[in-house]
Amino acid sequence: MHYFKFKGNTLYCENASVKKLAGEFGTPLYIYSQRTLMEHFVKLQKAFRSLDPLICYSVKVNSNLAIMKLLVSKGAGLDIVSGGELYRAKKAGCSAQKIVYASVGKTEQEIEDALLKGILMFNVESVTELQRINGIAIRCKKQCNVALRFNPGVDAKTHSYITTGKYENKFGMDEKIVKELILKRYKFANVNIVGIHMHIGSQITQSAPYVNAIKKVAKLFTELKKYGIHLSYFNIGGGLGIVYDKEKPQTAEAFAKKVIPLLKPLKVKVILEPGRFIVGNAGILVAKVLYIKETPKKRFVIVDAAMNDLIRPSLYGAYHNIEPITKNLKRKTKNSKLSDIVGPICESGDFLGKDRKIQVKEGEYISVFGSGAYAFSMSSTYNSRPRAAELLVDGSKIRCVRQRESYEDLIDKEKIS
Amino acid sequence: MHYFKFKGNTLYCENASVKKLAGEFGTPLYIYSQRTLMEHFVKLQKAFRSLDPLICYSVKVNSNLAIMKLLVSKGAGLDIVSGGELYRAKKAGCSAQKIVYASVGKTEQEIEDALLKGILMFNVESVTELQRINGIAIRCKKQCNVALRFNPGVDAKTHSYITTGKYENKFGMDEKIVKELILKRYKFANVNIVGIHMHIGSQITQSAPYVNAIKKVAKLFTELKKYGIHLSYFNIGGGLGIVYDKEKPQTAEAFAKKVIPLLKPLKVKVILEPGRFIVGNAGILVAKVLYIKETPKKRFVIVDAAMNDLIRPSLYGAYHNIEPITKNLKRKTKNSKLSDIVGPICESGDFLGKDRKIQVKEGEYISVFGSGAYAFSMSSTYNSRPRAAELLVDGSKIRCVRQRESYEDLIDKEKIS
Repeated sequence: MHYFKFKGNTLYCENASVKKLAGEFGTPLYIYSQRTLMEHFVKLQKAFRSLDPLICYSVKVNSNLAIMKLLVSKGAGLDIVSGGELYRAKKAGCSAQKIVYASVGKTEQEIEDALLKGILMFNVESVTELQRINGIAIRCKKQCNVALRFNPGVDAKTHSYITTGKYENKFGMDEKIVKELILKRYKFANVNIVGIHMHIGSQITQSAPYVNAIKKVAKLFTELKKYGIHLSYFNIGGGLGIVYDKEKPQTAEAFAKKVIPLLKPLKVKVILEPGRFIVGNAGILVAKVLYIKETPKKRFVIVDAAMNDLIRPSLYGAYHNIEPITKNLKRKTKNSKLSDIVGPICESGDFLGKDRKIQVKEGEYISVFGSGAYAFSMSSTYNSRPRAAELLVDGSKIRCVRQRESYEDLIDKEKIS
Repeated sequence: MHYFKFKGNTLYCENASVKKLAGEFGTPLYIYSQRTLMEHFVKLQKAFRSLDPLICYSVKVNSNLAIMKLLVSKGAGLDIVSGGELYRAKKAGCSAQKIVYASVGKTEQEIEDALLKGILMFNVESVTELQRINGIAIRCKKQCNVALRFNPGVDAKTHSYITTGKYENKFGMDEKIVKELILKRYKFANVNIVGIHMHIGSQITQSAPYVNAIKKVAKLFTELKKYGIHLSYFNIGGGLGIVYDKEKPQTAEAFAKKVIPLLKPLKVKVILEPGRFIVGNAGILVAKVLYIKETPKKRFVIVDAAMNDLIRPSLYGAYHNIEPITKNLKRKTKNSKLSDIVGPICESGDFLGKDRKIQVKEGEYISVFGSGAYAFSMSSTYNSRPRAAELLVDGSKIRCVRQRESYEDLIDKEKIS
């Protein structure tokens, strides 16, 4: 579901003509639909209403401050993974008591900063990390809360780079260690173990891996009760898949129906960490067609967006639907050769889509759909290409929420003697 | 060959202790050895001396202005691929007449800027581009030089993402089109076709693909002479491989010996476009070990550098040698379990090396070798991680040639209403 729709032959983001925006702000250009992302957030809220969970938006997915602010204003908490994201969280006006912090590599400085800000809890990934947090808390004369990240050993059936709940992944701890730490929790004087965290991966379209993992954690909760231990939080992570191509991901409601019956009996505060589910389909990347190049073996649509703007196709082999933003019905009847949609960067790995049916001419614009998640946030300045601008559209209201970088910006940090 | 050597148990970059630099400037940290990169440049100069070629350093490989300036001061030209790199070239003080510009996606603005600056030539990738350059030149009332990029249809035997001379790649034109354009060159009033350009890929360790491609172009030069056409330039591109692991790449001298006999009879000015060959082994990425995490299936060395700092392992499956910067001889005798060296980023694709023998403790530093090329230039701020600092070492002289980014820098372009 999203609000990028054709009105007649022209693509609109809510009430704004994408062509007009591209003309005014230039390309490559990220455009986000506020209504799309807010509705996704509300869908999740509604589906889980009976649990009254804390929904922590996963900042890494799309860290634009305007988007973070919007979600925070609607009651979202934030799921952060670095000191930089903690800084952003503060700028977005998020209450520290709604921030959870996960990462296998928290530095001492990052831990101290988060501790002093009084975040809700750390998601702890290893025994050493728990010891380190405790040590820093003692030094700072603070108490803090943590959830232990439980690695359930399930295969989320997604790309190997974004699977995170298998035993060979770097994330979390196995059941034995988690249990041991909880039973010996008195050893960590300034740390309160208040919950269990799990996060099995990203772009997961089925409920089975969640159900399996949640059942394992639920069993642990039940076991702990025998020892008189009641943990207050169960953070089930994020990872809900969206439609890029022909996926049939579970709806928020279907997902909730599967997992609520497992969660309710535990009598815990549930935390969710959605990211892609909220913003994935709420963004497009708009590019201009620079050249159509026919070679004996291939047809190339060369556009002004590249792998530095959107690395998902190259890095994960990810599929994004790509369409012209102006439909030309006459041209549609022609038999179209398959095209690779590629950028100007000097390597063959620079492509946005391969073997696509697309009818488009030089000078026209294309839209790369599903570019709200892991898109701008992963962008670089490779080939000395300034990073794109980002717009947020709310009905007819347009806000430039990140300015296009300039050539001057590229060298801003380089001191020349 | 490089000047990162152990003196006793400690790694030095030329005369500077890497540990000292890491302590002073923080990590993750890029350190470049000036002597290494200059010697590589001189090696190439010497090997090709008998041809007196124009050696255009490939800016995309490592675009740091200080490095560009150094090479320019020693007589190098520059091989650029974007308007951003043209801007850098000017800042580096490069004479426009030593700049060649290649890219399949040059925008009108970029072409006009380069034209007005009076660069030596464009490397033209398609018929449409040639027409466009000609049109812009007419509008600007300028004449300009171009080389036609010839796609020789050879397999450079490297990673598919960095192979660029196969017919299914987006680069260049086939022989038939190149010949046709040259014979009909009078159709392009403001463009002088002065040469042929080829570039078959990157990290090529053997001479055979070069020899094959050069022979094809040489044949074309000879054929053209029958029509009374003599082109003045032959740009043989870049792509010389270096040692990351156990590669045995050709030396500059061996390479020159193979190709000079093919080039000399053509009586043309030869252009080379080396990048990785010059800077690849002249840089290291230094990181601090944050956690050692033992799991039943794996041992993880979690460091404070990540895929946002160096994406080559994740994107290309590239191998980089990784070692502690302090050797502990006692520890060496222990039987060491294999380790994955990973960063703090929340995906399984975030790794720098897999299944390595490495003996290192928390708080110590490691060096990722071969990080001078396609390393910092591809870095991003993913997970809101500020980009690393870059140092240039010349003997005992240390220069910070790019300051570490701050959290403030991350949000500098984001307007919040």
